[in-house]
Amino acid sequence: MTLFDMPLERLREYRPERDEPADFDAFWKQTLDEASTHDLAPDFAPHDAPLTGVQVYDTTFAGWGGHPIRAWMMVPTGGTRLPCVVQYIGYTGGRGLPIDHLVWPTAGFAALIVDTRGQGAENPSSAGATGDPHGGDFAQAPGMMTRGILDPEQYYYRRVFTDAVRAVDVAATHPAVDAGRIAVAGISQGGGIAQATAALHPDVKAALIDVPFLTHFRRAVEITDREPYQEIVRFLATQRDTADRVFRTLSYFDGMNFAARGRVPAMYSVALMDFICPPSTVFAGYNHWAGQKEITVWPWNGHEGGGGRQRELQLHHLRRLFSVV
Amino acid sequence: MTLFDMPLERLREYRPERDEPADFDAFWKQTLDEASTHDLAPDFAPHDAPLTGVQVYDTTFAGWGGHPIRAWMMVPTGGTRLPCVVQYIGYTGGRGLPIDHLVWPTAGFAALIVDTRGQGAENPSSAGATGDPHGGDFAQAPGMMTRGILDPEQYYYRRVFTDAVRAVDVAATHPAVDAGRIAVAGISQGGGIAQATAALHPDVKAALIDVPFLTHFRRAVEITDREPYQEIVRFLATQRDTADRVFRTLSYFDGMNFAARGRVPAMYSVALMDFICPPSTVFAGYNHWAGQKEITVWPWNGHEGGGGRQRELQLHHLRRLFSVV
Amino acid sequence: MTLFDMPLERLREYRPERDEPADFDAFWKQTLDEASTHDLAPDFAPHDAPLTGVQVYDTTFAGWGGHPIRAWMMVPTGGTRLPCVVQYIGYTGGRGLPIDHLVWPTAGFAALIVDTRGQGAENPSSAGATGDPHGGDFAQAPGMMTRGILDPEQYYYRRVFTDAVRAVDVAATHPAVDAGRIAVAGISQGGGIAQATAALHPDVKAALIDVPFLTHFRRAVEITDREPYQEIVRFLATQRDTADRVFRTLSYFDGMNFAARGRVPAMYSVALMDFICPPSTVFAGYNHWAGQKEITVWPWNGHEGGGGRQRELQLHHLRRLFSVV
Amino acid sequence: MTLFDMPLERLREYRPERDEPADFDAFWKQTLDEASTHDLAPDFAPHDAPLTGVQVYDTTFAGWGGHPIRAWMMVPTGGTRLPCVVQYIGYTGGRGLPIDHLVWPTAGFAALIVDTRGQGAENPSSAGATGDPHGGDFAQAPGMMTRGILDPEQYYYRRVFTDAVRAVDVAATHPAVDAGRIAVAGISQGGGIAQATAALHPDVKAALIDVPFLTHFRRAVEITDREPYQEIVRFLATQRDTADRVFRTLSYFDGMNFAARGRVPAMYSVALMDFICPPSTVFAGYNHWAGQKEITVWPWNGHEGGGGRQRELQLHHLRRLFSVV
Amino acid sequence: MTLFDMPLERLREYRPERDEPADFDAFWKQTLDEASTHDLAPDFAPHDAPLTGVQVYDTTFAGWGGHPIRAWMMVPTGGTRLPCVVQYIGYTGGRGLPIDHLVWPTAGFAALIVDTRGQGAENPSSAGATGDPHGGDFAQAPGMMTRGILDPEQYYYRRVFTDAVRAVDVAATHPAVDAGRIAVAGISQGGGIAQATAALHPDVKAALIDVPFLTHFRRAVEITDREPYQEIVRFLATQRDTADRVFRTLSYFDGMNFAARGRVPAMYSVALMDFICPPSTVFAGYNHWAGQKEITVWPWNGHEGGGGRQRELQLHHLRRLFSVV
Amino acid sequence: MTLFDMPLERLREYRPERDEPADFDAFWKQTLDEASTHDLAPDFAPHDAPLTGVQVYDTTFAGWGGHPIRAWMMVPTGGTRLPCVVQYIGYTGGRGLPIDHLVWPTAGFAALIVDTRGQGAENPSSAGATGDPHGGDFAQAPGMMTRGILDPEQYYYRRVFTDAVRAVDVAATHPAVDAGRIAVAGISQGGGIAQATAALHPDVKAALIDVPFLTHFRRAVEITDREPYQEIVRFLATQRDTADRVFRTLSYFDGMNFAARGRVPAMYSVALMDFICPPSTVFAGYNHWAGQKEITVWPWNGHEGGGGRQRELQLHHLRRLFSVV
Repeated sequence: MTLFDMPLERLREYRPERDEPADFDAFWKQTLDEASTHDLAPDFAPHDAPLTGVQVYDTTFAGWGGHPIRAWMMVPTGGTRLPCVVQYIGYTGGRGLPIDHLVWPTAGFAALIVDTRGQGAENPSSAGATGDPHGGDFAQAPGMMTRGILDPEQYYYRRVFTDAVRAVDVAATHPAVDAGRIAVAGISQGGGIAQATAALHPDVKAALIDVPFLTHFRRAVEITDREPYQEIVRFLATQRDTADRVFRTLSYFDGMNFAARGRVPAMYSVALMDFICPPSTVFAGYNHWAGQKEITVWPWNGHEGGGGRQRELQLHHLRRLFSVV
Repeated sequence: MTLFDMPLERLREYRPERDEPADFDAFWKQTLDEASTHDLAPDFAPHDAPLTGVQVYDTTFAGWGGHPIRAWMMVPTGGTRLPCVVQYIGYTGGRGLPIDHLVWPTAGFAALIVDTRGQGAENPSSAGATGDPHGGDFAQAPGMMTRGILDPEQYYYRRVFTDAVRAVDVAATHPAVDAGRIAVAGISQGGGIAQATAALHPDVKAALIDVPFLTHFRRAVEITDREPYQEIVRFLATQRDTADRVFRTLSYFDGMNFAARGRVPAMYSVALMDFICPPSTVFAGYNHWAGQKEITVWPWNGHEGGGGRQRELQLHHLRRLFSVV
Repeated sequence: MTLFDMPLERLREYRPERDEPADFDAFWKQTLDEASTHDLAPDFAPHDAPLTGVQVYDTTFAGWGGHPIRAWMMVPTGGTRLPCVVQYIGYTGGRGLPIDHLVWPTAGFAALIVDTRGQGAENPSSAGATGDPHGGDFAQAPGMMTRGILDPEQYYYRRVFTDAVRAVDVAATHPAVDAGRIAVAGISQGGGIAQATAALHPDVKAALIDVPFLTHFRRAVEITDREPYQEIVRFLATQRDTADRVFRTLSYFDGMNFAARGRVPAMYSVALMDFICPPSTVFAGYNHWAGQKEITVWPWNGHEGGGGRQRELQLHHLRRLFSVV
Repeated sequence: MTLFDMPLERLREYRPERDEPADFDAFWKQTLDEASTHDLAPDFAPHDAPLTGVQVYDTTFAGWGGHPIRAWMMVPTGGTRLPCVVQYIGYTGGRGLPIDHLVWPTAGFAALIVDTRGQGAENPSSAGATGDPHGGDFAQAPGMMTRGILDPEQYYYRRVFTDAVRAVDVAATHPAVDAGRIAVAGISQGGGIAQATAALHPDVKAALIDVPFLTHFRRAVEITDREPYQEIVRFLATQRDTADRVFRTLSYFDGMNFAARGRVPAMYSVALMDFICPPSTVFAGYNHWAGQKEITVWPWNGHEGGGGRQRELQLHHLRRLFSVV
Repeated sequence: MTLFDMPLERLREYRPERDEPADFDAFWKQTLDEASTHDLAPDFAPHDAPLTGVQVYDTTFAGWGGHPIRAWMMVPTGGTRLPCVVQYIGYTGGRGLPIDHLVWPTAGFAALIVDTRGQGAENPSSAGATGDPHGGDFAQAPGMMTRGILDPEQYYYRRVFTDAVRAVDVAATHPAVDAGRIAVAGISQGGGIAQATAALHPDVKAALIDVPFLTHFRRAVEITDREPYQEIVRFLATQRDTADRVFRTLSYFDGMNFAARGRVPAMYSVALMDFICPPSTVFAGYNHWAGQKEITVWPWNGHEGGGGRQRELQLHHLRRLFSVV
Repeated sequence: MTLFDMPLERLREYRPERDEPADFDAFWKQTLDEASTHDLAPDFAPHDAPLTGVQVYDTTFAGWGGHPIRAWMMVPTGGTRLPCVVQYIGYTGGRGLPIDHLVWPTAGFAALIVDTRGQGAENPSSAGATGDPHGGDFAQAPGMMTRGILDPEQYYYRRVFTDAVRAVDVAATHPAVDAGRIAVAGISQGGGIAQATAALHPDVKAALIDVPFLTHFRRAVEITDREPYQEIVRFLATQRDTADRVFRTLSYFDGMNFAARGRVPAMYSVALMDFICPPSTVFAGYNHWAGQKEITVWPWNGHEGGGGRQRELQLHHLRRLFSVV
């Protein structure tokens, strides 16, 4: 691990021009409107986890296209009117097991752990239970980054972000949740999704965004040779005439454009030796964030960032923000 | 490269028991019947390749589910009533460019080079132009090997094999083709597809099967740590309770079961240092092949097998078989 | 990942001869007796974790040589007379953070998470807080496997196992713990330590031993080229005349010899594609276990074994064993 | 793959000073004069390829030192007075098989595919049939880059470039070839050879130079750690006092010096993520090219550059240039 | 290998600010004073090497804390009043065998080859015979770089440098040695130790410092991802709040601070493609060296630097300096 | 490193059938006779090494084809009628520097360190000074293993072994050498050369053969994927029809056939974890050795074998054998 990206002083100032399509807001409005034609249909099936301190609900709801999306609803046993964290998952992973997600409920929060459609079948520590029935009209590189990438309407993350927005609605419907105190959170891909969702859903009250992926694609594909950004490079190297279409599509999904619409308090983290989500791409999002914000810099870490240490900071932050005692 | 698998003498005798579902034939009959409810709709659009000796047609037809499948129809300029080779592509690749496929037409054969749906966006020398609109109801590992693998009906290769069978019909409709002299051919995944198609389509007259993939899955996933068989291992390692379902699904697609239905003359090749499609899995198919057969053994090669040398042998073989002068 | 070790049928029968020194029991008796001359001095300092469902105590006690050993005592808020799990950590890691260890307390158990001395400064997700003041009189390979390996008295794991045994005493002193219901548990190195502790401490009532390390050293160093067993090979390759001394030392620490002294119900797990702790070395321990036992086989996994899935099985098992409702 | 070299704007302007020996032209005049004392002795033996559209001649001629050089002469069946492409091969490869080289003849060109002496015995897809009888008076690193590198007279590429120039003469003698329409072409090493040959042979009429190797050695050995430029670094690291001699030798072979003598229309290509022939070394040649020129930039590709796509552009270009209909 | 660091012109000027604690000299005075409370107790046991030209003594002396340190004393047979080279060893290695160290005695010098405590059990060509009994109060990353790194008093290199200083005293006591002509020497870690010892021991008369390690830690950990500097990065990444303590500790051991106290003639070497001890860190030491100095630049080498060629230069240099005929 | 080859008991019995051409002896007689038509022309130029205990001669002699071969003659200062070791070098290396070869002279032996033609330009610690002017009539893989491999007359090692045999004559001519006490020695390739030379030269009196290369080629290319045996596999994979010719050529050079002609006392060594020269190939030579013999087994080492430890054993052995006091 080395300090391969800009020095920290420059990172703190790095605010690259955004490439935003004129119909960005219209695109997302239409997307979410379309989705809302499907009944949300949240189903909280009690799950027999061998746990006493937490009640677990195997949750299903209708995401983009009405497709069934799986999640775990975790509620501190006996809790009511609880603040809730909607959490999204890092790339390759799924919702895993309830016992993987005990931090929030042990700290007094409800939590909804949301599958990322199609993912969760390659990482033995993080299985998923949700498919992405939409395969796309185009060839794609292995992984999800380029599924449908030639058309914003078909792009994989259009469905994922829509699922994520609707998950906030799902959380709000749970009887134990105080719908006025919902935060979104995630690491890496999960951070990218949280960043987008905080911009897209008016009822989100806070965002916890760790080493976010899906942000400043153009720079990312030029400076890092690590996965998963390289999926895009492989696609461009093979589908040789598509760069304009690809970057046009990505402009509807770039975290910088969502960050510029951020309203709520955001807590970011970044790692200076992160070759997967290079620090300049993270600061590109953070520096554009329009709302209240703070960022924790982990100077000696790679993509693991602050790990549990960041989680502890988030707990303190969110308890303060949501007046949890 | 080493001789890591069985010695050649044992390979020549290796004929493992097949795991064949009782409704194997019914499954495929139903699958192809369903497919035939979609009009084949072959479209041969003349393609302006800067070539004089070969006429190229950018071809589209309706594959499984009526989905548009792309192919190149290559015809020696001015040829008529030509024997035709329907060729399938190796894993990760697509139909590429017409100039990648000049061997058959220069040797006096028409050739139909068929895209593998969804593939062809990661290998810069082999671009594809066909999507796989069916994403599947389940999580999947990156790549195509585990898309829909929990259900034979949804498994990716059900669609691919169906496309392949229909491609033979497409070739037969072309005015320059003698429908009575159609061969199927392919290397690796392409060899696996050819092996299946030769068993599934009654009008195929010959099969050229090089270092075939998709054969004897059970042994492959146990003895090689190379891609792409490892996609299945990763899936099984993550989706921990699915092994029975996975192997049941694969039993409908295992090359051994198609080989046992082989009727036409088959020319196989195998490489003894092939870690990707281990020689015992190739011989598992070959030794079960029910028709006339021969196999070329490349003792010092890896998965590249005989390369162009095998192509030359195939040209001689096919010219003899199809009485081409 | 491949099935590189024996087939499962042979593994189930594999019970290699043990190399046990005549004074094995005397060695350990003397070691523990010596240790008991140091006051245990358990200190449970309340730790301000931002958690509501669990009370955390930053714990210190006097381990081997009276050295301070750090641990986390985790108690379900308000719990009393609780069964307790003493958990040991995998190689390279330390006790980490309290939020890394919420499973047992959320399920109604107290848990003591014990640092492994000297480790925990290379794995960003698992920091330790305990030193190993004893450097040893000999040169050593990087890592801990060969520290003091030329002399059983000086060998690193003599101190580690002693710390582990005393940790059980520590747990028993905590007011919330029912000293009659203490289990030991661990994965990999942690499993090896649990296996030893269950044999060495008469008050342990159950053992949960996952993909254990430190077992059947002789075979391990001959068949796997992965870390950390290779530390021993590097040592032997460099310190060329020491093999007899090294294996004599290891005979006092080999998991097979502890397993043969196992009295309590043991729940093992093993992964058939585990190149780090090869399945034959795990079965070597399991098949020698003298007490009641069961083993879960994960056929498609590497060293991650069953992961959280195994944790769930353990919860059910231990709740039954310890009559937790 | 990343954009590791200069940004495109700087690449377009990058025209480093050339290190050219005063007797550069004299050296090459003498070299070619010496070579011409050997009778060219072109032998076009009809080769029984199983092809109908192309006639193949297994060709041998006397190269540098009168050594026998092998090539494939490919002629569209029945063609006469054809324009001809003399094609050189990439590093590690040989002329391969006739079926590897069907593009030019299928497009109406004769083609002479020229072995690179000594190469073609390590790459299974590209076998050679020509030795380099001159081993050199010095130690050499594996590979061909440093054979004879301490003396321009003995340097390997002196022989190779001479073979290449004489191959143009060979093509001109073939009855089917129009000697007034001969182009040279090649990829990587082949591009470097074509670049040199176009400068050295007065009758060449066009040059197709893809991602050329053997150009701007000094920069190449300083910025890329990939083969084969690293052969030179290894030599310099071992033969510690030879840098001056080595770079003096290379100055007689540097593509920049040939490019500065380019007269004919040249079509270059470059890939911006090419770690093997870094883009700045390619532009160093291109920007020095003295004749008419154009360059295709492949921004997302590595050393594969444009692949078949570039071949299609070349076909269009050459058909226009040579008035092929 | 590439020129990854600054260009040579900038390296020659690179003289970064030093981070030197106010009590640097006091720290070392106290350390060495403390050490001197232990009797040096040099023991030169004649060693039966099967050599005639050199007499070998298996040497032991009391290093830091009175710990026994092993060394080889090599004396040209029959030599008296000889100049002597005290040589330190590269990271991972130990004193090895007498036959590994014949250069100095064959050239007319006595030589003392000093073990580095704790090292020498992982590199088969360089075994050590000395332990480091002090394990440290903290967790550490594998290897020696971070043992005790949270406290200057406990840091591993405090003991090593003290051993090294006392080794000079040991050499001076040998009857065959002229105590007025003692040089220190070493490569990599050995160079770093020699650099420190030359500053700490007033009787050293010359220093031979090759590609020194342990110099300009701050830059090293930021620009190279190679071992062993990465041990520090891993520690910092895991022990997340310790950076200030770590760099404070390192400031007592940084080669730049010793170089600034260099009085005697120093002969350095540096390699421009050295990724292990980057050239800027070497020049950081060299440019701060306060005494007479010269440096040999190996432009095409990695960490092997000049190898035996540098040894020859050193022989000439030292024979001149010490008036050896 | 693992025990990947046969168990030691089987290795001790492993004596595979030899593939020996009928004219093996005639081939070598003719080869050496031919060579002897060139005057040996040994030239011992005094070399100004800065050494006092050893006199060094930069030696040149006429090897195969009369080509100049370089060597270092090392003589203990003032020695006369000395036994002499003729030493050959491992693959990739050359004679290096005189200071690399001080063991024999310091122990009272003269030593002739012989370059391996063409090698010594890739390994910075072992430079060579000798070219191999014979490049061969065939394509070759990088490295020397396949140069001329299609014809025994042209094979590279025919020249190397001839050089080696003549080097023994060279040593015998030196005034300080007792021609009746000459041994040959070498490690890896050097061991293979020594093994051959001991069989080919009647005046050799002893052989020291460490982890020999060039022995039992057939098995080696089948069981190890490491260099340099893989050069042969790459050749065979590319030059597809040459296996019979290749193995016929190798049968003239296989160490087993030389071993079967061994007359003098041989001291072998073998390492059980040697992936480069697998132990079964070493024992294949050793078990065929016809003369007196002993072998040292290094059970935990890779190709480094016994390293300096083996050198010490050889010194004792040779001093005894040659009555050196």
